[in-house]
Amino acid sequence: MRKIAVTTGNGSPGDYDPEAFAPPSFVAKVQSFVDGSDTPRAFLEECLDMIHAREPDVRAFSAINEDGARKAADAATERYRDGRPLSPIDGCPIAFKDTIETVDMPTQMNSRIYADWQSNRDAACVYGLRKAGAVILAKTVVPEFAMGVSGPTRNPFDLRRTPGASSSGSGACVGAGMVPVAIGNQTGGSLIRPSSFNGIVGYKPTYGALNTGGMHPIAPSQDHIGPMAATLADAWLAAQQIAATVGGHNGHPGLGGMPALPAPVKPRHLAWLHTLGWRELDDGSKAAFDRFVSDMRQSDVTILDQTSTPEIAALEDLLERANEISNDIIMYEGRWPILSYIDKYGDGSVGEAVLDRVKRGTQMTRNDYVAALAKRDEIRRQVISVAASVDGFVTLASSGPAPFDKIDEKGSLDRPQGHLETGSRSFLSPWSMVGGPSYSLPLLAVDGMPLGVQLMGVPDSDEHLTAVAHWITECYRT
Amino acid sequence: MRKIAVTTGNGSPGDYDPEAFAPPSFVAKVQSFVDGSDTPRAFLEECLDMIHAREPDVRAFSAINEDGARKAADAATERYRDGRPLSPIDGCPIAFKDTIETVDMPTQMNSRIYADWQSNRDAACVYGLRKAGAVILAKTVVPEFAMGVSGPTRNPFDLRRTPGASSSGSGACVGAGMVPVAIGNQTGGSLIRPSSFNGIVGYKPTYGALNTGGMHPIAPSQDHIGPMAATLADAWLAAQQIAATVGGHNGHPGLGGMPALPAPVKPRHLAWLHTLGWRELDDGSKAAFDRFVSDMRQSDVTILDQTSTPEIAALEDLLERANEISNDIIMYEGRWPILSYIDKYGDGSVGEAVLDRVKRGTQMTRNDYVAALAKRDEIRRQVISVAASVDGFVTLASSGPAPFDKIDEKGSLDRPQGHLETGSRSFLSPWSMVGGPSYSLPLLAVDGMPLGVQLMGVPDSDEHLTAVAHWITECYRT
Repeated sequence: MRKIAVTTGNGSPGDYDPEAFAPPSFVAKVQSFVDGSDTPRAFLEECLDMIHAREPDVRAFSAINEDGARKAADAATERYRDGRPLSPIDGCPIAFKDTIETVDMPTQMNSRIYADWQSNRDAACVYGLRKAGAVILAKTVVPEFAMGVSGPTRNPFDLRRTPGASSSGSGACVGAGMVPVAIGNQTGGSLIRPSSFNGIVGYKPTYGALNTGGMHPIAPSQDHIGPMAATLADAWLAAQQIAATVGGHNGHPGLGGMPALPAPVKPRHLAWLHTLGWRELDDGSKAAFDRFVSDMRQSDVTILDQTSTPEIAALEDLLERANEISNDIIMYEGRWPILSYIDKYGDGSVGEAVLDRVKRGTQMTRNDYVAALAKRDEIRRQVISVAASVDGFVTLASSGPAPFDKIDEKGSLDRPQGHLETGSRSFLSPWSMVGGPSYSLPLLAVDGMPLGVQLMGVPDSDEHLTAVAHWITECYRT
Repeated sequence: MRKIAVTTGNGSPGDYDPEAFAPPSFVAKVQSFVDGSDTPRAFLEECLDMIHAREPDVRAFSAINEDGARKAADAATERYRDGRPLSPIDGCPIAFKDTIETVDMPTQMNSRIYADWQSNRDAACVYGLRKAGAVILAKTVVPEFAMGVSGPTRNPFDLRRTPGASSSGSGACVGAGMVPVAIGNQTGGSLIRPSSFNGIVGYKPTYGALNTGGMHPIAPSQDHIGPMAATLADAWLAAQQIAATVGGHNGHPGLGGMPALPAPVKPRHLAWLHTLGWRELDDGSKAAFDRFVSDMRQSDVTILDQTSTPEIAALEDLLERANEISNDIIMYEGRWPILSYIDKYGDGSVGEAVLDRVKRGTQMTRNDYVAALAKRDEIRRQVISVAASVDGFVTLASSGPAPFDKIDEKGSLDRPQGHLETGSRSFLSPWSMVGGPSYSLPLLAVDGMPLGVQLMGVPDSDEHLTAVAHWITECYRT
């Protein structure tokens, strides 16, 4: 089948052509490193060429370590020459969201408190990938502490639009073809939404399946890290290599599976969750998703929805409050360390958006928080109940394509405080809370801008869900 | 009843007299601040006088902020004068284990990598207590990263003996009467053991009930923080104030209850767990605990053990492997960030004990870890099964009183690398894994050295367990 492209004729379209778009994939290259027809160093230079061409417009990076990356790529090149790569990801250039600590680049979190701050260590995911031979290339722009006003990054398919947040730089740098893999994180909707907006594969593994050590906390009970990548195989490989070296977190066994992408598995039943997000959708996005549903049905996949079973209807009812519950949990858990920064450095040390959020958190009582946790548990139980009779859940990965940035009074896109509008979380809050794996798959386009299909599973079903994602992706291979 | 003192006549006794020992309690003082007959500043000066007298021998602190503490104590003094203390802990001098971040003192973790390192923030527990008006006075000595060879701290009741580890400085500074409360942490046995060795109350709350943010991780699925204090009321108050401001961690609702010590509740049944530790005990410690059991029975408390019910016998069987399982979990989870430090700074950047531990962790497979987690779950389920018919569990809080330090070849106690022997974990591993609350209660003495009774409960039974601890403590009030 051809990927789904909808044109509404409203406004000026973006540059995204879903059939032609093919950002550089590491997995597609690696055989050429093994057989000696190409090298990691040459691949890195292609990435750097793209960075030099695109970064002045896209502004995805807060730091780039070209020298360090070249040394690492040369070492990987030698290992392939000797027939002894360290792992299946040896030589892959990777960028990291700038809330993730690195020993060789500053970790600044877009905060004046952390300007030029240098950690003593690599975050667990950085360490895991570095030890596997990956080329640690750059840090990517985030909103202040991944929760405030966004940075200067712009959407590579239309510079007037947002790349999404909070993994804004990680989404844009992969969408612009500057690196094959970037690591982002999600607490509310921060990984799946920018993946949708930038035409790439986003993979939020099961909560706890990848070690979050060394990531600045937002709300620990919903903090996930995960790969944003050119292809499904690149995303899966990166997650596997992190788990192989540093495991999961907090008593989780860590992501299971093997580095190679699981073979495609055709789903028999998928549950289509409309969620709050459906009501926010433009007609073009609705039409695109309707065509996806119709494609699946033509391929003999049964798509169920709230009209099909009382269990799905009950889940949709519960999800009406998803944003509210998720926000409560995030604001309550997110009070520390922000309050400690404010106590030490003053109110002016953090932006208004961050200040406002933690102040709302301090107004909550323990009972409010306990009530939110109970609601989250209820949603999780209902998801597990529905999942007994389906192979996964589908919905959109964002409330339409990337919105146009709200321009400030001077009409400039160069505001240092960044974008005001990074999109809705309505399609994202549910699975941030459920903690199961979710994917954004780049199968749709609306008016020349990418839009992802979100595929979701119950906790610890990552390997099966990835096999289903593989099958769906194969349906659209042209 | 009188506290239990056993004399074996073997070796030279320590200075601990359980009847006479009464380290300064904040809770006992606070009414005098309210009525104006005493002030937090005067109380702080008493603490500082004791520090000046005892610290040269005991060596409990890695940093002391006398000026900052005096300012904070003066501010608290003014608030009491105005009749507006910030909280029930306003004006209480507190010390923190040096793996816990503070904005006004370095956090060095006894590691050369962190020499003079200054965090940008207070750890969650420091922030919580500071906002409640507590006087943040000092940092306490730890073994390297709370897992390597110990620091120079010595037992205040016998300088030839260890204060225990890893909360060595926190235990010794309270035992020496230098501060009423210090915050420690426990992953394997690090809080309850030094509380036992130093004659103080140690309280390890339910796993997750106190926010561990800003504590250097050891093994996140077993990392707990908790107070070590002059009295039960001081310990409970400190934990309550942390929870009131920063809550729990990782989706836990946070410790429930009120700042005032729960009224005494007489237990009807207590389960006596012998564990591996009983086989390691000297005769004096056995005699002391036997007398405790006999005291409880005389007070009409039924003490059950493995001969009483098949459920307790099954639990004892499972606990045979407690040390092994706990060590596996700690070594596997503890690989990061230590491996990242070694990668950056070289093998010589961490001590041999730390290096050895993480190397053993890297030899474990994911399957080994999954097996250890499954065993831990089995123990937790069996504890809950036994708890259906008892009000708590009792055992010793350490395998006897503090052992003599192993003297190095030069016969000196001044070795910069510190103590080689800090005691067994056999009585501690079980509840570090179970994650329920545990107390060390200073009720016993053997040859002039303190020895704690460990009282333990199921997760989230903290308030009830504290009421039981209160009742037991009252039995021994003379």
